[in-house]
Amino acid sequence: MSGVQPGTTGLVVQNIERAEQEIIDGLAECGVATVHEAQGRKGLLADYMTPIYAGARIAGSAVTILAPPCDNWMIHVAIEQLQAGDVLLLGTITPSNAGYFGDLLATSAMQRGCRGLVIDAGVRDVRDLTEMEFPVWSKAVHAQGTIKETLGSVNVPVVCADELVNPGDIVVADDDGVCIVRREEAAEVLEKARAREANEAGKRARFEAGELGLDIYDMRGRLADKGLKYV
Amino acid sequence: MSGVQPGTTGLVVQNIERAEQEIIDGLAECGVATVHEAQGRKGLLADYMTPIYAGARIAGSAVTILAPPCDNWMIHVAIEQLQAGDVLLLGTITPSNAGYFGDLLATSAMQRGCRGLVIDAGVRDVRDLTEMEFPVWSKAVHAQGTIKETLGSVNVPVVCADELVNPGDIVVADDDGVCIVRREEAAEVLEKARAREANEAGKRARFEAGELGLDIYDMRGRLADKGLKYV
Amino acid sequence: MSGVQPGTTGLVVQNIERAEQEIIDGLAECGVATVHEAQGRKGLLADYMTPIYAGARIAGSAVTILAPPCDNWMIHVAIEQLQAGDVLLLGTITPSNAGYFGDLLATSAMQRGCRGLVIDAGVRDVRDLTEMEFPVWSKAVHAQGTIKETLGSVNVPVVCADELVNPGDIVVADDDGVCIVRREEAAEVLEKARAREANEAGKRARFEAGELGLDIYDMRGRLADKGLKYV
Amino acid sequence: MSGVQPGTTGLVVQNIERAEQEIIDGLAECGVATVHEAQGRKGLLADYMTPIYAGARIAGSAVTILAPPCDNWMIHVAIEQLQAGDVLLLGTITPSNAGYFGDLLATSAMQRGCRGLVIDAGVRDVRDLTEMEFPVWSKAVHAQGTIKETLGSVNVPVVCADELVNPGDIVVADDDGVCIVRREEAAEVLEKARAREANEAGKRARFEAGELGLDIYDMRGRLADKGLKYV
Amino acid sequence: MSGVQPGTTGLVVQNIERAEQEIIDGLAECGVATVHEAQGRKGLLADYMTPIYAGARIAGSAVTILAPPCDNWMIHVAIEQLQAGDVLLLGTITPSNAGYFGDLLATSAMQRGCRGLVIDAGVRDVRDLTEMEFPVWSKAVHAQGTIKETLGSVNVPVVCADELVNPGDIVVADDDGVCIVRREEAAEVLEKARAREANEAGKRARFEAGELGLDIYDMRGRLADKGLKYV
Amino acid sequence: MSGVQPGTTGLVVQNIERAEQEIIDGLAECGVATVHEAQGRKGLLADYMTPIYAGARIAGSAVTILAPPCDNWMIHVAIEQLQAGDVLLLGTITPSNAGYFGDLLATSAMQRGCRGLVIDAGVRDVRDLTEMEFPVWSKAVHAQGTIKETLGSVNVPVVCADELVNPGDIVVADDDGVCIVRREEAAEVLEKARAREANEAGKRARFEAGELGLDIYDMRGRLADKGLKYV
Repeated sequence: MSGVQPGTTGLVVQNIERAEQEIIDGLAECGVATVHEAQGRKGLLADYMTPIYAGARIAGSAVTILAPPCDNWMIHVAIEQLQAGDVLLLGTITPSNAGYFGDLLATSAMQRGCRGLVIDAGVRDVRDLTEMEFPVWSKAVHAQGTIKETLGSVNVPVVCADELVNPGDIVVADDDGVCIVRREEAAEVLEKARAREANEAGKRARFEAGELGLDIYDMRGRLADKGLKYV
Repeated sequence: MSGVQPGTTGLVVQNIERAEQEIIDGLAECGVATVHEAQGRKGLLADYMTPIYAGARIAGSAVTILAPPCDNWMIHVAIEQLQAGDVLLLGTITPSNAGYFGDLLATSAMQRGCRGLVIDAGVRDVRDLTEMEFPVWSKAVHAQGTIKETLGSVNVPVVCADELVNPGDIVVADDDGVCIVRREEAAEVLEKARAREANEAGKRARFEAGELGLDIYDMRGRLADKGLKYV
Repeated sequence: MSGVQPGTTGLVVQNIERAEQEIIDGLAECGVATVHEAQGRKGLLADYMTPIYAGARIAGSAVTILAPPCDNWMIHVAIEQLQAGDVLLLGTITPSNAGYFGDLLATSAMQRGCRGLVIDAGVRDVRDLTEMEFPVWSKAVHAQGTIKETLGSVNVPVVCADELVNPGDIVVADDDGVCIVRREEAAEVLEKARAREANEAGKRARFEAGELGLDIYDMRGRLADKGLKYV
Repeated sequence: MSGVQPGTTGLVVQNIERAEQEIIDGLAECGVATVHEAQGRKGLLADYMTPIYAGARIAGSAVTILAPPCDNWMIHVAIEQLQAGDVLLLGTITPSNAGYFGDLLATSAMQRGCRGLVIDAGVRDVRDLTEMEFPVWSKAVHAQGTIKETLGSVNVPVVCADELVNPGDIVVADDDGVCIVRREEAAEVLEKARAREANEAGKRARFEAGELGLDIYDMRGRLADKGLKYV
Repeated sequence: MSGVQPGTTGLVVQNIERAEQEIIDGLAECGVATVHEAQGRKGLLADYMTPIYAGARIAGSAVTILAPPCDNWMIHVAIEQLQAGDVLLLGTITPSNAGYFGDLLATSAMQRGCRGLVIDAGVRDVRDLTEMEFPVWSKAVHAQGTIKETLGSVNVPVVCADELVNPGDIVVADDDGVCIVRREEAAEVLEKARAREANEAGKRARFEAGELGLDIYDMRGRLADKGLKYV
Repeated sequence: MSGVQPGTTGLVVQNIERAEQEIIDGLAECGVATVHEAQGRKGLLADYMTPIYAGARIAGSAVTILAPPCDNWMIHVAIEQLQAGDVLLLGTITPSNAGYFGDLLATSAMQRGCRGLVIDAGVRDVRDLTEMEFPVWSKAVHAQGTIKETLGSVNVPVVCADELVNPGDIVVADDDGVCIVRREEAAEVLEKARAREANEAGKRARFEAGELGLDIYDMRGRLADKGLKYV
């Protein structure tokens, strides 16, 4: 971890470490459910985080934002820190459904190669964002405007939808939600996720051929031992 | 009813009675709102049950699953009990939003002719399920994995989203939600639903011609009697 | 305001004032987020009001409905009061998720030129409504039927999703939600919204050219004054 | 109504009309449920408004506050407008659970004879408020601090927990929640509430003597007519 | 089970079987958590069911009520069916937070020996009910009135807060919530609950003496086997 | 921070650093709202964390628990790590309302000097816990039992109700909720909290003497500058 305490305000960390792009892209291909399983069922954001449109599937290095109540000032600060392949991830100091982000910010973020936004708050201009194909996972869609009065931070660890996210952690997001992978563990998680995919491909073929999970996973004996009765 | 108490665990009932396929298919055509009205406004599941994609419209005989907390073992057991035209319906012993069901289970269920899933819990791999055109009505979309440790039951009566469902009851589901029809009442409900549809077709023509509900339903006198004032 | 108290029941106000159609159409083009900002960040309905399908963008004069619990009788009364370009807007006397509105009522409303429905309650037949392209913003989708027993009112001020709406106020709705503009302020709000759009177009060009919000809005000095540290 | 639009900001109305204290005190004695019934089942605030301690039972003239997001500045302005027997009532421009009010503000309000607070937001220092016997009905208890940056209004009509409240309306609050009575209707509502109480006292005596509601209200015939079967 | 389908309307079942009072009273003494464990962790109502005051601890035979939306007529019918030691339990046909029950109905129910009410809806007059020491577990406290227009049923199986309850099942309720025990299983569940209590008394003494659960339950080896590391 | 990643499972950190007891006790006296303000409005847990009984006011060093879904095994492990003056604080890997903690665990924890529990999940036996005067702040009260199958961790950083908590951080809790103070900042925060209290005492005296906040805080000029109008 970065050594900076979550909750620290007034700070912009400029040079964060990122995982290799190849690993990040591999995680995107595996998807949220597989990555979540591959890393031992940790890292999932709360299930209230939903995509503004269906079908997007991304991964990227987290540029994290800690935002004061109803204040989106730090997003402008964060955009300057973006590199191609990054994902913006915003946590709030206190819960809010206000619309912190819209099409102008998305235009700016996309211009720097940003792949999407994960925001534990509200978003607006969702029709424009959908047309721009800028994916967002959010807690709410709300047009409520925000102000620019108080400092938060950029690239400090933040709590977002029940999970701690460090700057540079990998954000994986698709229609199932959002999963965080620690940067240091990314290579190992990808390897396990790939193995899991290979295993699942074999299983899928057997299911398609009509075999049952009861037989593929050899469950019948254990079920009988537990006392399952058929009548 | 089957004589088995809801909440019974450790039991698989193998031979359940089903309604005639023609009746079931007729109920699917009528849709949830019409069927709900036709049977006297009963049988609706709670409104938090939403489809993972828009446009699906199904009916089928319920193969019911009672699932322990965060444990999807019984789904494998249930799939063996599926016949073509059935719908899986899962209730939990305690509320959970975990992802009990994903694309491999869907592959297996589809192979046996299953028409969809109604689950008072979470589902995952929704992008794959959408591509496979396997419709699901669920309380949540969440990638959170489940375990296979504890027995529940298959084909016992279960409470699902505020309604009791018996195995073999007809599950009708579309974009409006989910409605349950008792197997014994299915033929009569279909007849009433058809009559309602015929009646509505006539009404629709009159509405399209510009007549008002106030006149079609002869409401003006009763409104005046109740004291409605126009100013 | 009309002089009638919100909450008044048993009353239908027949001749309400409406804004000019050109102004109303202009507000629809600007969209909810822009209009909300242009009028000083007021008038937004609660964020639980969501469209039944994506992509609709409307504005119209509010024909307001005050509805008793689980009772949709007043909608029939309201439809007679509709003029082309109006929007139905329903508030309830006590919260309800029942399905007050479906395809037959939509047929009747469309026949009179109604542009859509905003309802602080439930709606049903959403597949039909989607096919008919009759947009609805609602708190819930639920097939639960309603009755026709008790009087409410039409065209009295109603509270809908946290906002007071007067008959003839302009309802602006799109994928971001719903915003209310006072009839008396509509022209001025449109002017400000147009100015805001022009301003945003210029900003968008600069963002697309790679400029940062930090520079476009000249934020760096103020951030430094507040004590923002870069490390 | 006052002629000022709900949602107006930047305004303090100094001389509001109030109902007679005797009428207000009578409404407090009747309590929320009786008053709500007596005025035709209108005026109830949403059921998420709960008292911070059990047993308080108050009524008073509403001094209304429209508060910007996370900003409690207007409460200070409102306190100057308080007269003995008033109740502070706060609605927000956008939903918030922040703690707008605590023990210092309560000290100031009590000093001017304020009887309590109804707030569609959060409150803090609830232990102190309980010891001071200053009753509060709120949406949340939260210590989250607020700022003093933006103007709202005092004594304009506000929407609070789903109801419009005019300055000078009577706020009745007890363990059942909060009910609003229009100032102009207060005398008539009190009369009906008194009559209702007298009627209920007679009913209570009969219930205590063992009579059934089925007989007291002569329901048996109507139930039979509707088709109720006893088996 | 009774042979009557849950959801049946228009029916009053007069002679229901009840468990022995001694068994029922024993279950009350054991309390909800112990009874829930003793019967294999089933029968708990949803956790949104909360007592209107702390400290009540009851058990009784369920006299069940199926109530139409916003309609409390069937409660009057149910009260006639009460015997000393019974508990009223109400499920709704569609979710509602309206106040179905107040002090007059409580007066009548207490007169017949009713021990309390479990209601998957709202209750009012909670200050009076508290003074009368008539305990209620409910989903909401709300003064909203209900009507008497539509038939439901009394003493048919009902779904209440996620559980099916048969007439005559034992309702156990305390500060932890509500648990249902099947009438046929009551004696056996009481026996197991008593055994559990005895066992817990021994454990409590050891905990009070400073022993750790790690040792009392002999967990250290199994934790080490699972790989727990101390650093 | 400890150097251990939040979310790490299978680990027990035995020797954590704690703040001085005098500082901790001082923070308890100041209370949640004051401490939250004194440290710059950070550290508050979500407002759904509520005390099981009113009036408790504690502070202590956090012994943190990361708990798997529906599994309370790690609480036994954590109790061995308790020292007098500590507070147990539990975060879950996935959201749960199950009852992880009851009177036996409380007996054991109290025996070791534990001052209370903060749990982002459910608790049971609340009547016993109240009698024992063992305070708990929880997300839910639910009797639902948990299992002992899977490893979590003790004394690693955990996310609890939207905040990251490190082992040894100070947990301050009262009727307003829960606030976390970083161990390293505790002395400084206490100093500021004391200063704030002294300042508030002076303010309280002036409010009691009838002065207005408008004058005490010299707000009139700034309000006028912002354009506030009195009518």
